[in-house]
Amino acid sequence: MAADAALLEQAKRVLYTAVLSDVLDGLGHRHQAMRPSVRPLDDTLMLFGRARTGIYMDVYHVDPAVNPYELEIRLIDDLKPGEVAVLACGTSGRIAPWGELLTTASRARGAAGCVTDGLCRDLRLIREMRFPVFCGGIGPLDSKGRGMVMAIDVPVETGGVHVAPGDLVVGDVDGVIVVPKAVEVEALRLAIEKVAAEDTTRKELEAGALLADVFKRHGVL
Amino acid sequence: MAADAALLEQAKRVLYTAVLSDVLDGLGHRHQAMRPSVRPLDDTLMLFGRARTGIYMDVYHVDPAVNPYELEIRLIDDLKPGEVAVLACGTSGRIAPWGELLTTASRARGAAGCVTDGLCRDLRLIREMRFPVFCGGIGPLDSKGRGMVMAIDVPVETGGVHVAPGDLVVGDVDGVIVVPKAVEVEALRLAIEKVAAEDTTRKELEAGALLADVFKRHGVL
Amino acid sequence: MAADAALLEQAKRVLYTAVLSDVLDGLGHRHQAMRPSVRPLDDTLMLFGRARTGIYMDVYHVDPAVNPYELEIRLIDDLKPGEVAVLACGTSGRIAPWGELLTTASRARGAAGCVTDGLCRDLRLIREMRFPVFCGGIGPLDSKGRGMVMAIDVPVETGGVHVAPGDLVVGDVDGVIVVPKAVEVEALRLAIEKVAAEDTTRKELEAGALLADVFKRHGVL
Amino acid sequence: MAADAALLEQAKRVLYTAVLSDVLDGLGHRHQAMRPSVRPLDDTLMLFGRARTGIYMDVYHVDPAVNPYELEIRLIDDLKPGEVAVLACGTSGRIAPWGELLTTASRARGAAGCVTDGLCRDLRLIREMRFPVFCGGIGPLDSKGRGMVMAIDVPVETGGVHVAPGDLVVGDVDGVIVVPKAVEVEALRLAIEKVAAEDTTRKELEAGALLADVFKRHGVL
Amino acid sequence: MAADAALLEQAKRVLYTAVLSDVLDGLGHRHQAMRPSVRPLDDTLMLFGRARTGIYMDVYHVDPAVNPYELEIRLIDDLKPGEVAVLACGTSGRIAPWGELLTTASRARGAAGCVTDGLCRDLRLIREMRFPVFCGGIGPLDSKGRGMVMAIDVPVETGGVHVAPGDLVVGDVDGVIVVPKAVEVEALRLAIEKVAAEDTTRKELEAGALLADVFKRHGVL
Amino acid sequence: MAADAALLEQAKRVLYTAVLSDVLDGLGHRHQAMRPSVRPLDDTLMLFGRARTGIYMDVYHVDPAVNPYELEIRLIDDLKPGEVAVLACGTSGRIAPWGELLTTASRARGAAGCVTDGLCRDLRLIREMRFPVFCGGIGPLDSKGRGMVMAIDVPVETGGVHVAPGDLVVGDVDGVIVVPKAVEVEALRLAIEKVAAEDTTRKELEAGALLADVFKRHGVL
Repeated sequence: MAADAALLEQAKRVLYTAVLSDVLDGLGHRHQAMRPSVRPLDDTLMLFGRARTGIYMDVYHVDPAVNPYELEIRLIDDLKPGEVAVLACGTSGRIAPWGELLTTASRARGAAGCVTDGLCRDLRLIREMRFPVFCGGIGPLDSKGRGMVMAIDVPVETGGVHVAPGDLVVGDVDGVIVVPKAVEVEALRLAIEKVAAEDTTRKELEAGALLADVFKRHGVL
Repeated sequence: MAADAALLEQAKRVLYTAVLSDVLDGLGHRHQAMRPSVRPLDDTLMLFGRARTGIYMDVYHVDPAVNPYELEIRLIDDLKPGEVAVLACGTSGRIAPWGELLTTASRARGAAGCVTDGLCRDLRLIREMRFPVFCGGIGPLDSKGRGMVMAIDVPVETGGVHVAPGDLVVGDVDGVIVVPKAVEVEALRLAIEKVAAEDTTRKELEAGALLADVFKRHGVL
Repeated sequence: MAADAALLEQAKRVLYTAVLSDVLDGLGHRHQAMRPSVRPLDDTLMLFGRARTGIYMDVYHVDPAVNPYELEIRLIDDLKPGEVAVLACGTSGRIAPWGELLTTASRARGAAGCVTDGLCRDLRLIREMRFPVFCGGIGPLDSKGRGMVMAIDVPVETGGVHVAPGDLVVGDVDGVIVVPKAVEVEALRLAIEKVAAEDTTRKELEAGALLADVFKRHGVL
Repeated sequence: MAADAALLEQAKRVLYTAVLSDVLDGLGHRHQAMRPSVRPLDDTLMLFGRARTGIYMDVYHVDPAVNPYELEIRLIDDLKPGEVAVLACGTSGRIAPWGELLTTASRARGAAGCVTDGLCRDLRLIREMRFPVFCGGIGPLDSKGRGMVMAIDVPVETGGVHVAPGDLVVGDVDGVIVVPKAVEVEALRLAIEKVAAEDTTRKELEAGALLADVFKRHGVL
Repeated sequence: MAADAALLEQAKRVLYTAVLSDVLDGLGHRHQAMRPSVRPLDDTLMLFGRARTGIYMDVYHVDPAVNPYELEIRLIDDLKPGEVAVLACGTSGRIAPWGELLTTASRARGAAGCVTDGLCRDLRLIREMRFPVFCGGIGPLDSKGRGMVMAIDVPVETGGVHVAPGDLVVGDVDGVIVVPKAVEVEALRLAIEKVAAEDTTRKELEAGALLADVFKRHGVL
Repeated sequence: MAADAALLEQAKRVLYTAVLSDVLDGLGHRHQAMRPSVRPLDDTLMLFGRARTGIYMDVYHVDPAVNPYELEIRLIDDLKPGEVAVLACGTSGRIAPWGELLTTASRARGAAGCVTDGLCRDLRLIREMRFPVFCGGIGPLDSKGRGMVMAIDVPVETGGVHVAPGDLVVGDVDGVIVVPKAVEVEALRLAIEKVAAEDTTRKELEAGALLADVFKRHGVL
């Protein structure tokens, strides 16, 4: 079940990926964190939004009869406020599907960010725009003649995690978490509670308490 | 032989990993630098302290009858001022054994830092605490149900380097060096001398001298 | 054909690697971007200069009868203003051929920077000197007893790209591009034109235009 | 639900891993095939039996006070006829937990085979015994001082697949499949049916039919 | 220019991949050998034929409205005698596009073999048919829900080598070589000559001649 | 100390790599087994001989003024009966330094075999000659223009193991072991003894004894 606007608003304000990861673990969803190679371009920015997905296929020539960007353009032009472009590029590391023009266009639509296991380019301009982009590496190679979006708004795997269209995607300095729709409300509520509990634990430890005592008292670390 | 307090103090003030690495090479210890994948969370911080070790085993389920953090807690709660938690996680990249709560607890005990070839999470808070952490990557995944400390205070391998309990561990922006106890005093003394020699070399090069001439004069680069 | 000074000057002022990569793609040179693992030490610095090349061989012992730095010294001492040291180390990741002394010496000769797929050390001092270095990783290990330059001023492969002596090498936050001599003038001219075109596209997108319309109008992204 | 003896007997006689993999895919269990790096020592032998599991932890020293083989010995000595030793070694590739002595002992107990993502040694003798062993590589390194079994009869991951104690494990020249207990009966029955269907398809193709026609007729490939 | 039937016939009878590789090196085509991970299922079989290409895209769900094998079927059903199915799967290692049914169908059309950097399954039956298959690994996973052919008869990259439709593909125990159309006739002629020269060299070495003398006499090794 | 002819003869007759590996472990030499990727071309052949070493450097062009095979030829032409060519190629996987002509020449000199972490080609002819070759992979690529021997008869690392000229190198189906000169006599003697002990253990296990009892009785597995 999808969370309502109030819960989403609160979640966006107080949650971070580590607490979401712990809560999803507890709910039996233990493969929701993308690989460590998917990193933020600017690790002070938070990503929080719903996935709009695209899959790239590796290609090895330029076909002049084809617009290589057709589906990519369709996906970006259709982004709604708060949505996140999630681009699955696999493991080839040959292409940089994301750059400043897609950033500019997405931002103009109100999109919340981008997550890809492909490369990204135009870092300087993207960082200036303060648009949250999480990517599998950095490189100047355009996708033309290297990769092409072949399907949009279908389930994908990005950074090793299954992402369905509409899944909540959360990213910060620690990585990217995908929240499955089936447990979205429960996960957000439990995570919000856990944030408060961790504040207590932290204070006790700062005051010099032993981990053993804190763990005995609260049953969590 | 372990260095005395005065030598350690001077070493901590003037040494850096590159000079220690060169000196250990010269003493025949050529495998003392951890893999380049072990990086500092904050590359302005220096790490200098004695190793307290733990080994993680990958696990694949949560056993409710077992405290998954038992030995980890014992190790951290027993850290003495100036000690460094060295956590060997192998190459699986599945877990983030280190986070802000362990950082808070270690700092409260006066520990000098943490080195792990596993992942780390809660970067924002750890960086605010300015606690030196060197890790094999970043990710939000808790160790519970993924990894468990099975032995502490035994020899381990972290980042490809053998670390015995009590070994001096030094880290900075260039990486992490482990100083074997057998050559500790000699290595520190030679390294302190070499720092002075490098200052001379650098000045001559800044003044425009050719490398060939400088190398002929001083026999080192 | 090599570009004249005026063209080089303008190129250095306005170009960036992404636009050069696109233009070289269009000219049929599609393997000119180094692997994403070759990263700048300081991603605010631009690298622009002509390649002076060296190849390292892995070695496994120190031969006291041999100066292990002989060809390396010869290459650096012979750098001319605007030249870039390009050091091919292969994929072993065992050595840090570049450090602060080579930086100091190269800078004193007026060199434009360094590119290597090996490691680099002494980051703190190199960053203070604001000398553009792009490398395959960071680590404190000296090359002595690990690697030795065996040939200079010959064609090499660095970061997966063929580099001939004299090739123009351009690096920035997005990576490193090598411009083959045969298309140098044409590539620089086309890239300078494309920069202007991208400014137009960006402005339209910022104003809210759809990618589909912008692509239809200008035929490029 | 576990299959009864008759169904197991028939399955063992007619099934192979590819057909089991297809059927498990259809039942929504799409991660049941071990990584391609897990290969049979003798690819003419079939493996079919129930999993008895063990997890190795990497260790880095020999503790004279400890029997490094204790749990390993307990697991092997307790194998029942038709059981398969499943040894999870992770990805380190440092140890060869399986060799001819464990083979001899397991065979004397009536065990059905061994699957490990670690290495194996003593190939000549194991092949002479015609005991089905599937492993992640070949190497002469004993586990003593390198790895130690720390838990037996618990859920593990081997070759990237989750294996619970008692799961049916099937291996042949194409790889290793793990059949989750929850769908065991259904999977075996469907697979037995599919074998017959594939025979029909194959005959039509041998007779020269087009794939398009065969697929239209039978709806499967 | 394509070779005529007589030249092809002779080439098929006497050539092997190592001599073709040397000759293509000499003609400046130095990237024509597929990665060593692409191996023959049966290393006594020779592959020699013209490429018919297909590219797979990784997919992550089964769309019941789509025939996942559509283009794959079209490619195989259209194979002509002497043609080789070349299937580009990239580096994901998730799918086994080739198996016994495609083998049976291809063989019925008179096809010369298959080359893929994906996995292969049904080894036992394929080996019985003595159909030359070169693949990137072995595994039982069907492509359905994992990969789908999205383009046929276009340029591809397989095993790291560019393959254009119609290129001659030659495989044996040493690997797979792709002969670019532009140098086909020249390469085949030179290779046939070199086979004879190597016979001479080999005889001299068998008779005890020193390599130095043989190399001086014939200028080749 | 080097073993005398009688000990070497006996060792060659009865030893295998696994028993040597165990004995070297016991003597504190725990890194003597080459990586599992170094495999025999024919796993029925035993390799036993003294190392003659060469190091390859990756090169990226053909220099017509240079004989690219000069040192390679010198090494092979100088092989004495019972010697093993050990060729260190690093991890690039770009070249196949060994082929049938070097095999023919080495065999004519009475050499005992070849070990390389590079590739090998001409498998069919080498297997016919029954010459023991252990290599890091198979591929048709000549070394010309890709790699060149730059030093012979110096310490090297092959397959991850340090090899000094004159070290005893032993290979069989389980892998390759290097015996350091300093412990050669002791290692051979202990290994010969251990072979007898393992025969006893094996017989007891074949007779149905439990591992626990056998281990208690003999203290070894």
